[in-house]
Amino acid sequence: MNGGIGLDRLSLNQATVKHLGLKETVALCVRHDIGAIGLWRDRVAEAGLAEAAAAVRAAGLRVSSLCRGGFFTVADPDGRRAALADNLAAIADAAELGTGTLVLVCGGLPPGQRDLGLARRMVADAIGVLVPEALRLGVRLGIEALHPIFCADRCVISSLGEAVDLALLFPADAVGVVVDTYHVWWDVRLADEIARAGRRIVSFQVCDWVLPLPADTLLGRGHLGDGCIDFAPIAAAVEAAGYDGDVEVEIFNAEVWDAPPDQTVATVRERFAAVLGRG
Amino acid sequence: MNGGIGLDRLSLNQATVKHLGLKETVALCVRHDIGAIGLWRDRVAEAGLAEAAAAVRAAGLRVSSLCRGGFFTVADPDGRRAALADNLAAIADAAELGTGTLVLVCGGLPPGQRDLGLARRMVADAIGVLVPEALRLGVRLGIEALHPIFCADRCVISSLGEAVDLALLFPADAVGVVVDTYHVWWDVRLADEIARAGRRIVSFQVCDWVLPLPADTLLGRGHLGDGCIDFAPIAAAVEAAGYDGDVEVEIFNAEVWDAPPDQTVATVRERFAAVLGRG
Repeated sequence: MNGGIGLDRLSLNQATVKHLGLKETVALCVRHDIGAIGLWRDRVAEAGLAEAAAAVRAAGLRVSSLCRGGFFTVADPDGRRAALADNLAAIADAAELGTGTLVLVCGGLPPGQRDLGLARRMVADAIGVLVPEALRLGVRLGIEALHPIFCADRCVISSLGEAVDLALLFPADAVGVVVDTYHVWWDVRLADEIARAGRRIVSFQVCDWVLPLPADTLLGRGHLGDGCIDFAPIAAAVEAAGYDGDVEVEIFNAEVWDAPPDQTVATVRERFAAVLGRG
Repeated sequence: MNGGIGLDRLSLNQATVKHLGLKETVALCVRHDIGAIGLWRDRVAEAGLAEAAAAVRAAGLRVSSLCRGGFFTVADPDGRRAALADNLAAIADAAELGTGTLVLVCGGLPPGQRDLGLARRMVADAIGVLVPEALRLGVRLGIEALHPIFCADRCVISSLGEAVDLALLFPADAVGVVVDTYHVWWDVRLADEIARAGRRIVSFQVCDWVLPLPADTLLGRGHLGDGCIDFAPIAAAVEAAGYDGDVEVEIFNAEVWDAPPDQTVATVRERFAAVLGRG
């Protein structure tokens, strides 16, 4: 491809070095000249919100996103209230951490339910409740379409087009979509839907689809270039749609997690440059 | 739902009782008053084509489909010729067995390739080569969209809409689509695409999506009602599209395969009536 994405836009999502705490990951980014980080709430909470915010600020890192809110498909009123409260807290956390993006994993079918339409309405309703706070704090909610393999148990939003349709129900300053190559690479409509998403794209996450899938299908992700995803046309479409933010490398993979973090991050940088970079 | 699908339209796909040979499966259908069978080429070959055809005829069974042709995404010319020859033979087998439908599993990415567009063009090209023979012998090629989990390694046609787009390139007498609940249940566009498929639907296969997925994700299928698929609206959409043929129960599941076949088929009948039947 012409152009490509420079290493200055590489962001390390914490999940790629899952065994490290927040401050260790911040230090790792600094050590490897990575300018941005994608944070996870559990690690932020462990470090303390104010301390986490201070650590990334002191290191001069951009926070490309906070992972994650969502899990809205709760049928009982108490559970639903708790989910909304947790998401409001996540929006506040995102603002405090200095990121404009809260990634949403919207939730699967409620236990014992088979009604996808109901579950999808629950997602739309919950996002609607969150929009005023998102606008007030300047945090955009990023609806992430998850691979259809996760439709039943993690996210009933199974394609980018569906995420875009949902986002378009709300103000652009409040709700966007996340493009994660792992989840959407198979979709024949992908280029069209990325174009349609346009400026609604609030996060671009990359990792590869590797075969064979592991027993825990959540962990079947690989370093860029280790699998079968053709990244160049996807990245070009995301660029053409107007996205010029950070690009997060987020790899869920037990072997990657067990590797020395410095080695992992060196590979992340090298592959980012080779696969997405200015050839 | 009003109406529903009568047990007279139940077809037992051989894969549901994988450990049985063809004649045993034919006898099982007769014993359980099942009027139709979905055949597999390996079991037909093992029994002998003429003998298999004679056995199903003698038993008075309809053959709802032959599984399967496809695997078109072969890059080298010899492999491609072999794939086409094998598919021409499959069309002839289908005609000999008295079925009007050959199910196609189109193939994944060619080894070492990442170009989904190329793979999809290879599928379209191959189907084009097969159409004249399909028309001559009165066998319709049923393009089956497989779940996106199989996009890389088994079938680059990952949604029903894509299968419909592909089928529409060819005469309706030659090429249609297969609707398999397991592969398409997650798709927010499903009802629209079933309606658009209309009379192009040449096979309707049912089984459930069960959690947790097994280590071999090919085998994560369950008896109707054991998983999370809402069958009634899908079946109603398929009916409304004009499909009035047999409905195959096809379950890939190691536990189901290890159960006594008479018990499996009794469960198949009972669930079919309860989940799809005239309530």
